[in-house]
Amino acid sequence: MPFISIEGIDGSGKTLQSRLLAAALRKIDIKVIETKEPDRGSIGAEIRSILVTDRTAKLSPLEELLLISAARVSHLDGVIRPALDASEWVVCDRFLDSTYAFQVHKTDVPERLYKEISSVVVGQTMPDLTFILDIDPVTALERRSQRGEAADRDPSEATRDFSRIREGLLVVAKRYPERCRVIDAKRPASEVADLILFELKRSTLL
Amino acid sequence: MPFISIEGIDGSGKTLQSRLLAAALRKIDIKVIETKEPDRGSIGAEIRSILVTDRTAKLSPLEELLLISAARVSHLDGVIRPALDASEWVVCDRFLDSTYAFQVHKTDVPERLYKEISSVVVGQTMPDLTFILDIDPVTALERRSQRGEAADRDPSEATRDFSRIREGLLVVAKRYPERCRVIDAKRPASEVADLILFELKRSTLL
Ligand SMILES: Nc1ncnc2c1ncn2[C@@H]1O[C@H](COP(=O)(O)OP(=O)(O)OP(=O)(O)O)[C@@H](O)[C@H]1O
Ligand SMILES: Nc1ncnc2c1ncn2[C@@H]1O[C@H](COP(=O)(O)OP(=O)(O)OP(=O)(O)O)[C@@H](O)[C@H]1O
Ligand SMILES: [Mg+2]
Ligand SMILES: [Mg+2]
Repeated sequence: MPFISIEGIDGSGKTLQSRLLAAALRKIDIKVIETKEPDRGSIGAEIRSILVTDRTAKLSPLEELLLISAARVSHLDGVIRPALDASEWVVCDRFLDSTYAFQVHKTDVPERLYKEISSVVVGQTMPDLTFILDIDPVTALERRSQRGEAADRDPSEATRDFSRIREGLLVVAKRYPERCRVIDAKRPASEVADLILFELKRSTLL
Repeated sequence: MPFISIEGIDGSGKTLQSRLLAAALRKIDIKVIETKEPDRGSIGAEIRSILVTDRTAKLSPLEELLLISAARVSHLDGVIRPALDASEWVVCDRFLDSTYAFQVHKTDVPERLYKEISSVVVGQTMPDLTFILDIDPVTALERRSQRGEAADRDPSEATRDFSRIREGLLVVAKRYPERCRVIDAKRPASEVADLILFELKRSTLL
């Protein structure tokens, strides 16, 4: 069954679009699970807590890459592969490409290491289609503050960081045009949802 | 300053010999830190707790490799490299070769992945000398039970596992004869300690 990942910077609308896509699929009697990273799987919660803990020595991109990849192993074995094997669709809020954009693109982590880890961890279980919700960092930040989130850091620093991550996702889209669809995520949510369904049909997955 | 690692199966005498070596060095006014893996460093304790938690879905060698390597990053950056930079000796109870023996040798983890991760994580900070305390699993198990440890699992299963790990360490010793010294760890502790000091002198590190 199709495995769909949804990528984008914070506030781009991944969680909302995952929910809308799953709802649209269920409406036409398709069995689908929604999941996200790093989250489920047997060690996901523990690793998530390491990742979000505020500490004096900030985690390096290399440490994050290794930890997130470890959590991905159990997420794949415990959640994603069983669902696909049971003929369910999987909609995943962030997956491999977030790791590239956050931990590898313009960091000191060698791409070769990332590729080696990914090929062993993910293997054949690559998403069939990946939606990259593309949006400028300023709009994304505004949305997050409207969501009632306290700005957790300097907005101009966040904007710079998100620009790098956005750029990393666009690099992925260019590298894997067969798998990736860049969606203009600045549009109203219902239009974004329609574009996603349109692309799914166009790719004959739906 | 020299970076020494001590390897061997559980009960081979690593902790005892680390202590004896550090004491011998201090006696001749050498500054030395004793450390072990996975333990110190900013995320070591958290990762150690993930590794030792009993869970229904046992961690795979791949997950362990990724977690231990993540902990190694902060162990190197936070403990080992600062000590070496401050002209102290480092004596480390388990390091890279344990990872090979436990997580890679005769498991489904590709050696190429292990090598790629190791070269990025450890980089130039390889041990100058590695002592492999070689002992048969049965004697090692007896020592551990004398230490007052409850047998945590089926002894014949443990023996089989330890045979594989011992074999993995001997593979390492054969592959890196310049760096590794195999020591007969069945001998009395004081003799083992003397052999270690002898090898350190012979290698001109001491
Ligand atoms: N197309 C849209 N137009 C306007 N607002 C939107 C749109 N999509 C999402 N939002 C709102 O923006 C906020 C962020 O959306 P959402 O939580 O789905 O983003 P996200 O990508 O999951 O963010 P995070 O990475 O932080 O989890 C939410 O309040 C959501 O309702
Ligand atoms: N050469 C020796 N002869 C006899 N007993 C020994 C010798 N070396 C260590 N022992 C004893 O065997 C037990 C195990 O030694 P130690 O704890 O140093 O092993 P270890 O390799 O660190 O084990 P672990 O991997 O479980 O930490 C201890 O009780 C120790 O005192
Ligand atoms: Mg979200
Ligand atoms: Mg010990």
